[in-house]
Amino acid sequence: MSPDLAETIAAVRDRVTPSAEERDALEEVVDLLLARTEATVAEADVEADVLRVGSTARQTWLRGDRDIDIFVRFDPSYSREELEREGIAIGKTVLPDGELEYAEHPYVTAEFEGYSVDLVPCFRVESGAKTRSAVDRTPFHAEYVKERLDPTLATDVRVLKRFCEAIGVYGSDLRTEGFSGYLTELLVLEFGSVEGVLEAAASWHPPVHLDPEDHGIEEFEDSLVVIDPTDPARNVAAVVSAENVARFQHHVRAVLAEPSIDKFEPPEIAPLTDHELRDHLQQRETTPIAVQFAAPDVVEDQLYPQLRSSVTSISNALDAHGFDVVRTTTFADETAVLYFELAVRERPAIERHAGPPVQVQQHAAAFLDRYADADVYGPFIEGDRYVVERPREIRTAAALLTPDHLLNVGLGKDIRRVLAEGYDVLENDDVTALLPEFGRELRRFYEPSP
Amino acid sequence: MSPDLAETIAAVRDRVTPSAEERDALEEVVDLLLARTEATVAEADVEADVLRVGSTARQTWLRGDRDIDIFVRFDPSYSREELEREGIAIGKTVLPDGELEYAEHPYVTAEFEGYSVDLVPCFRVESGAKTRSAVDRTPFHAEYVKERLDPTLATDVRVLKRFCEAIGVYGSDLRTEGFSGYLTELLVLEFGSVEGVLEAAASWHPPVHLDPEDHGIEEFEDSLVVIDPTDPARNVAAVVSAENVARFQHHVRAVLAEPSIDKFEPPEIAPLTDHELRDHLQQRETTPIAVQFAAPDVVEDQLYPQLRSSVTSISNALDAHGFDVVRTTTFADETAVLYFELAVRERPAIERHAGPPVQVQQHAAAFLDRYADADVYGPFIEGDRYVVERPREIRTAAALLTPDHLLNVGLGKDIRRVLAEGYDVLENDDVTALLPEFGRELRRFYEPSP
Repeated sequence: MSPDLAETIAAVRDRVTPSAEERDALEEVVDLLLARTEATVAEADVEADVLRVGSTARQTWLRGDRDIDIFVRFDPSYSREELEREGIAIGKTVLPDGELEYAEHPYVTAEFEGYSVDLVPCFRVESGAKTRSAVDRTPFHAEYVKERLDPTLATDVRVLKRFCEAIGVYGSDLRTEGFSGYLTELLVLEFGSVEGVLEAAASWHPPVHLDPEDHGIEEFEDSLVVIDPTDPARNVAAVVSAENVARFQHHVRAVLAEPSIDKFEPPEIAPLTDHELRDHLQQRETTPIAVQFAAPDVVEDQLYPQLRSSVTSISNALDAHGFDVVRTTTFADETAVLYFELAVRERPAIERHAGPPVQVQQHAAAFLDRYADADVYGPFIEGDRYVVERPREIRTAAALLTPDHLLNVGLGKDIRRVLAEGYDVLENDDVTALLPEFGRELRRFYEPSP
Repeated sequence: MSPDLAETIAAVRDRVTPSAEERDALEEVVDLLLARTEATVAEADVEADVLRVGSTARQTWLRGDRDIDIFVRFDPSYSREELEREGIAIGKTVLPDGELEYAEHPYVTAEFEGYSVDLVPCFRVESGAKTRSAVDRTPFHAEYVKERLDPTLATDVRVLKRFCEAIGVYGSDLRTEGFSGYLTELLVLEFGSVEGVLEAAASWHPPVHLDPEDHGIEEFEDSLVVIDPTDPARNVAAVVSAENVARFQHHVRAVLAEPSIDKFEPPEIAPLTDHELRDHLQQRETTPIAVQFAAPDVVEDQLYPQLRSSVTSISNALDAHGFDVVRTTTFADETAVLYFELAVRERPAIERHAGPPVQVQQHAAAFLDRYADADVYGPFIEGDRYVVERPREIRTAAALLTPDHLLNVGLGKDIRRVLAEGYDVLENDDVTALLPEFGRELRRFYEPSP
């Protein structure tokens, strides 16, 4: 390791390690919550133990993070319904101000003394491979990491998390498609230090395959594969997109080539200004077109995959109609936006339509009949086929984005639902109307970087 | 056969059969030429016989045609050089005003008493399969047909030729890529009458394979295969394009469905007017662009294949640059024209340029280095690769038709030669400048029919 890199990492360590006061304060709250939860469990007379999990349990949380995760682990004799009912009741008792969150799995979440607390019921299962609910694996992860991560390694995990945050690949949610906390922990364990991770990643040739417990599983097709030590059937990095693996490599190389603390800081992105956006449009001479609508009220893990698949479907339709999509993006806040940049503004008035081969007499006759008196050029013969040139229905991208057509491409179901209620199409300079809400996203789009 | 068809064909027969006077006049001239040629051969003391070949020899010429073909068939002991020298000398003696034509094979051609006479030397070879020069097969064709074609069949050949003329597929030259006289003769022999040919062709499923003498050869890949009775290794229909086979089928069906004499008359095509052309351009909203240049001084059989391959090459380049070619054509007279109709008028100012996968460290570093301070958008990462958006060099079709680019696509060699000396590019309404020379061709292009 270069002295520069060592120095940089040491400086980042100082920044990301919580102070003694911060730790003490956190521990006090955690102890309080654990005690309260245990008492509630005892009172409720359910067979369950109470566990502290998450990064605060593993000493890998970043200074300033204020997330506390407490699990109530039920005996496997309980049914799924009982677990939900009792789990929620316990949560509501421990956190009277708590709200019920219920995506795939129910849990209670609340602000408590300045901390963000999740109280989550799960089943006690035999191993990470035998889970009954989506979160049953978590206690195994917590245990696996706690047993192996000494304070030095835990601090290295903090540095690696900070690096991932800085380059935008931290988080296993489906918006980010990045590195989970558990994944960063496994990487530090695998390579012995944060420097070890960086040096290894610089020369990765995806697909990368890591198997800390030598389970010998080879069947994953992801760009980055890290076999879960607690469940051989699971790739801990499954959610990490190929693009984010590439992005990670790019920035790893950059920091190794020129170590500096600012490479561990998320960049400040100023919103793009009206003037800057107009300049980009003029300079690129492309045609921007955006579909804007009220964001559906679903969690991000449901929203972003649907936004992306909608963008892909519409982009394919735009390409199929000859508008030649240059780039696309999607973003959401109060409203959601599907954004397309086109190379072709307008199509001609006619479109070629190839008919049957002349030799296929029955189809040929039907084709000739159909176009005999139609307002077309032809029929004429090209190669061995009949061809006509018909009036083209879709001559502009906007014509393809009318409800008749837009609602007939493959859209995510919640996206289709809200689009059916209405949406705006913004073209050319009108896309500047997106700036107040999405100025940062538009800067990222028009000033792209790795 | 429907009475209508029989009636129509009878009427066409009358039109295409030369009158007794026409025949007598022709025979008189042929006799004179044969006698004069034989005398010249005798005087020159070469070992050769004199043959009358071609449609006038087979009684299959159309009323009004005035072509006489006479072959001087040399003993095989002569060398190629001797054949050429003696053959030309004899030709020049028989036809003192004759001109030497020399494409692949030398011959003398002249206007003589109102007839167009070709006097062609060839070798006497054992069979059509053992030719030494390109025309040695002709006497075998003449003999094969003369032995089999009675006056009724000969008249049917005349009707079939007329039909092919009317629909634009008569002629085995490389401009037409159509049916030779010999091919029409073989078809009538094969199907027993012109009606037989029409009824068979209506339900052809190309590739069509005919083998009059059962040579059993199967290896041709053309759309229409007629094994030469005098040379099993040759497909008499090799030059007929798939498009002309389809065109023939189309018109055969039309005439069977609704027989009429005018379907045997070449249509009168009026030149497209300036007003009509502008209307088409406005109605189609496509972008026409034409390259016009002095036609190279080569025979049509050399010119048209080169024009077509040049159009294909340029069209591919236009497509590759995103101008989306709708249709193309080419025509030639004093000048030659490569004509393109585009769906896309203009490309944006930037173009996407995909770089190496991020993982390939050496290429990745070179790419980043190259574009670090360049005037580009990015580099950024898409999927697992680096991408930049660079300024686009070719933003209009005209930019691709400058000598720097045009002379670097695959052009026929004579086309390249004359283009290197200079050419004009006509865009949009300026293509109306082509009308005085190519009004008929432009009507065929803008009012296409089978």
